[in-house]
Amino acid sequence: MKDATHAHHGYIDNKEDYLKRLRRIEGQSRGLQRMVEEEQYCIDILTQVSAMTKALQNVALGLLGEHLSHCVVQAAATGGRETNEKIKEANDAIARLVRS
Amino acid sequence: MKDATHAHHGYIDNKEDYLKRLRRIEGQSRGLQRMVEEEQYCIDILTQVSAMTKALQNVALGLLGEHLSHCVVQAAATGGRETNEKIKEANDAIARLVRS
Amino acid sequence: MKDATHAHHGYIDNKEDYLKRLRRIEGQSRGLQRMVEEEQYCIDILTQVSAMTKALQNVALGLLGEHLSHCVVQAAATGGRETNEKIKEANDAIARLVRS
Amino acid sequence: MKDATHAHHGYIDNKEDYLKRLRRIEGQSRGLQRMVEEEQYCIDILTQVSAMTKALQNVALGLLGEHLSHCVVQAAATGGRETNEKIKEANDAIARLVRS
Repeated sequence: MKDATHAHHGYIDNKEDYLKRLRRIEGQSRGLQRMVEEEQYCIDILTQVSAMTKALQNVALGLLGEHLSHCVVQAAATGGRETNEKIKEANDAIARLVRS
Repeated sequence: MKDATHAHHGYIDNKEDYLKRLRRIEGQSRGLQRMVEEEQYCIDILTQVSAMTKALQNVALGLLGEHLSHCVVQAAATGGRETNEKIKEANDAIARLVRS
Repeated sequence: MKDATHAHHGYIDNKEDYLKRLRRIEGQSRGLQRMVEEEQYCIDILTQVSAMTKALQNVALGLLGEHLSHCVVQAAATGGRETNEKIKEANDAIARLVRS
Repeated sequence: MKDATHAHHGYIDNKEDYLKRLRRIEGQSRGLQRMVEEEQYCIDILTQVSAMTKALQNVALGLLGEHLSHCVVQAAATGGRETNEKIKEANDAIARLVRS
């Protein structure tokens, strides 16, 4: 699945933004551990799980959008066999997101 | 939203199991940061995001199940006004999960 | 899975409302066929699919809520073996909704 | 949102297949009405709702995949301003699917 042919992925321009969002998600996962440790109320924990799931989903949608605008568009512009492969790969990723 | 009346929540019996799963999820969020840091391929990152989302969802379904079997059943057995409130609270949590 | 012991399910009081919502969903499915028949734009079709999915999800959340408030609470109030079975059944239904 | 510039959408080659799937979904929506009419058990109704939601999701993923392989790739190959617009439109549709 590695993509050695492109040195530059779409999300790289916003790398710092994605890292910041993922660090916040890491913080949320630690917050959840503290809530369980302190035996907090289930419903309050579930509220936090939903917030964290939404944050993760937004990261995924962001990455996917940049992947489509960069890698997929680039492959399509170049043409050739690689395009279909890229599209199939993107579709599979979208199906995993929709089903998860 | 705090539940002062029950000293014992449903998930407590499996507290260690939930903490272990949440620590693994924390590890996944750090793994994602490393992937972005190393500028790995978007699709591979998305695959990891989907796996992490599924793990979070399973934690949520587990907590919700124990909440229903313990807190909600206990409230229903006692009867009284609290039951409706607990059911409403559970429904709202389910709706947030289904929509997230 | 039939539930012969309860003559009265939670959603029955709102039976007409559910039928109305399901007829509207049936209409949406016919609308989608017309859009495909007329070869309308994919993205417009997808917008309608998302609206229909949301409508279905809301029906499911409504039915589940009434199931919890009626059948599950009733089973819990009566106590006994049936309660665990009802809770397990509800959890399985919730998991299917969250994962679909 | 109409796309007058392309006379041929990606899904058209499989138009009959999509119509067949949508007719089956219409049948499921009528089956659900019959279940409510006959006051069947909530959990059995919910099982059918989940099956119907999955069928709808698969239609959406299929249409989206063909949209990406045809309209988006075509726009990207042509280049120009339209590409960004197409990508934005596709991303928005994906976000609606993931969130519904």
